Amino acid sequence: MDVTPLIQPADTKLVLMVMDGLGGYADAEHGTELEEAVTPNLDLLAAEGVTGLCEPVGPGITPGSGPGHLGIFGYDPEAFELGRGALSAAGLDFALQAGDVAARGNFCTLDAGGRVADRRAGRIPDPDARAVVEKLQAGVHLDGAEVFFRHEREHRLLVVLRGPGLDPRLTDTDPQATGVPPLDAEALDPEAKRTAELVEELGNQVRALLADEPRANYVLLRGFDTHRELPSFQDRYGLRAAAVAIYPMYRGIASLLGMDVLGHPKDLDEQLEILRGAWADYDYFFVHHKYTDSAGEDGDRARKIKAIETLDAVVPQVRALGPDVIAVTGDHATPSQLAAHSWHPVPTLLWSPHCGRDDVTHYGERWCLRGGLGIRPTKDLMAIMLANAGRLAKYGA
Amino acid sequence: MDVTPLIQPADTKLVLMVMDGLGGYADAEHGTELEEAVTPNLDLLAAEGVTGLCEPVGPGITPGSGPGHLGIFGYDPEAFELGRGALSAAGLDFALQAGDVAARGNFCTLDAGGRVADRRAGRIPDPDARAVVEKLQAGVHLDGAEVFFRHEREHRLLVVLRGPGLDPRLTDTDPQATGVPPLDAEALDPEAKRTAELVEELGNQVRALLADEPRANYVLLRGFDTHRELPSFQDRYGLRAAAVAIYPMYRGIASLLGMDVLGHPKDLDEQLEILRGAWADYDYFFVHHKYTDSAGEDGDRARKIKAIETLDAVVPQVRALGPDVIAVTGDHATPSQLAAHSWHPVPTLLWSPHCGRDDVTHYGERWCLRGGLGIRPTKDLMAIMLANAGRLAKYGA
Repeated sequence: MDVTPLIQPADTKLVLMVMDGLGGYADAEHGTELEEAVTPNLDLLAAEGVTGLCEPVGPGITPGSGPGHLGIFGYDPEAFELGRGALSAAGLDFALQAGDVAARGNFCTLDAGGRVADRRAGRIPDPDARAVVEKLQAGVHLDGAEVFFRHEREHRLLVVLRGPGLDPRLTDTDPQATGVPPLDAEALDPEAKRTAELVEELGNQVRALLADEPRANYVLLRGFDTHRELPSFQDRYGLRAAAVAIYPMYRGIASLLGMDVLGHPKDLDEQLEILRGAWADYDYFFVHHKYTDSAGEDGDRARKIKAIETLDAVVPQVRALGPDVIAVTGDHATPSQLAAHSWHPVPTLLWSPHCGRDDVTHYGERWCLRGGLGIRPTKDLMAIMLANAGRLAKYGA
Repeated sequence: MDVTPLIQPADTKLVLMVMDGLGGYADAEHGTELEEAVTPNLDLLAAEGVTGLCEPVGPGITPGSGPGHLGIFGYDPEAFELGRGALSAAGLDFALQAGDVAARGNFCTLDAGGRVADRRAGRIPDPDARAVVEKLQAGVHLDGAEVFFRHEREHRLLVVLRGPGLDPRLTDTDPQATGVPPLDAEALDPEAKRTAELVEELGNQVRALLADEPRANYVLLRGFDTHRELPSFQDRYGLRAAAVAIYPMYRGIASLLGMDVLGHPKDLDEQLEILRGAWADYDYFFVHHKYTDSAGEDGDRARKIKAIETLDAVVPQVRALGPDVIAVTGDHATPSQLAAHSWHPVPTLLWSPHCGRDDVTHYGERWCLRGGLGIRPTKDLMAIMLANAGRLAKYGA
């Protein structure tokens, strides 16, 4: 239900720790990554709190990072759509204007036959990528629309078209596969036909400009979107909310929800430092840990386990700050067996003095299955966190 | 959520095995029928996959076979209504026309006082029933409407009225009990009043024509319905779907969803033979096993257990075909203690290389309760099957 009418003030602090792509699945050889990780501090939270499994968007649905995070923040991912372009723009502090069309770009490597050989251009280092972005900004000129290129990190960039009559209802040019050529952006509505033509022309110019680049010789586009207004955390929950995230996309979504995005941390230690420094000034802290997902996407089981253990190691520092509520979850599963996002439910734990206890003493998928939170939609987690923080009044007389 | 926009092609095969009326409940004397059946092959699927309990229509709701199956196929049974009449017609390849009113008929035995003595006319054998159907087709004549009688199996028949101004909004004449007289079909809407009168006249003529029949001396009607268009499996899921079912009603619902209904099998062995023969030509196979339900309806616990074991025995033949996803469930519970459909959740298992594993190693209600699928609406099973088959693209950026 809509909790906004029930919001009441309280002098409590909530911490949400998101391990991106946390979920996994057991098979004949292995438990899940989380089950096999050595996580004494998360296990202690699980033992002292309640656990469960959350489905970010719906049963069987594999979430993108946008809907996955919206769910964690209590925004129904079916009601609030967010394109990757808008997320990227927000993450880069690029002020999208009404009517702009933004897309997330990936530098890729095309082979001699024009087929995608590497969807991430060998995860091109930042300085090299920035140079290619500058080349594009200087060299691409469209008839009837301005175009902006902004570098994010590694192979990722933001592409924005600005001009009259643009429409974001286009299909991706990223085929999400190698060995095949990039796709054409197709108009999903007749109104978007001209925008599709502009994107085609943009693709041609990019191809010509980058023909001699060894790795980043093309840009795949996905998640065409336009500027959107979302109700803020402050308005919905009465929370002064802060985000401590490294990657632009997660900074972006936090910013779109009206959170303050703090500092420019480069690793988890810096994230914790920022958290400590801002502790007095906010009610709610979103700490985003990316490396579980990157490792899962690379199919690197051992590295994903290690990334979980890295997060585990900072839990005592979080507890030392004296939060009233801690929640730990993921925005979706990224099983290393699939090397991709998946639909599997995400192990979740909630810790507060009032949350109760179940019999679960380890944080992991099959233990969480027996936990007090049950299996439920991720979007329900926010209300449970608020309740545990004493921030929801009684409903009805 | 609506998965259709996420459908992507994949070279995978899905098998759904439905044990009709599978669910049961434990009591002081017994476990459920499924718990007590010896099912080594289903247990192996459970051990290698995930399990749970599904509620076909909603908590506490006892489903008819129509809504029960719609749920399994991912069609919300509340959004897509299907009368038994339309199902029967589809199952008999009787082409309902717009405006027709169809009902499922049961031959019954009325006693000398006009009360229902046997709701199934002693499960009258097919040849005898066919002769009575012919007598009705020759002898019943209504003023202003054509009437069609078609035999299904045993005591079951289809009755169709065709003519101007008919309306299916009528109550059943089947009292669903013995020792009481048949009911009148009552108009649920003023528009259906004339149709109710035609049904009353039809009942009078049937009673007169069959007065001398030893067993089948009346016809009880239920599930008045008209022709409906349902979105097809191909359109919703991009699946080439085939049904391998013995009984007309299940063939009917499959046909209404656009599945190809294969062959005319007489037993499970013939169903398996058809499955093998068609394996290359379809993506999705619906195998329907009726005898769990018939035994449950007769209150015959031992026979229901036996019917479950019969299905278990063919599981290795299904696995030998190399399916990517296997799901086993029921369309509703038919506990032998009640000798009727019931509201109890239905034990469900899902097997695929990517479904993960829970700790459940036996297929049965109380084990499934601890399974990774949790307790969930049956209609969510389809999305999870599609996800496991690699047929759902990521949602959102």
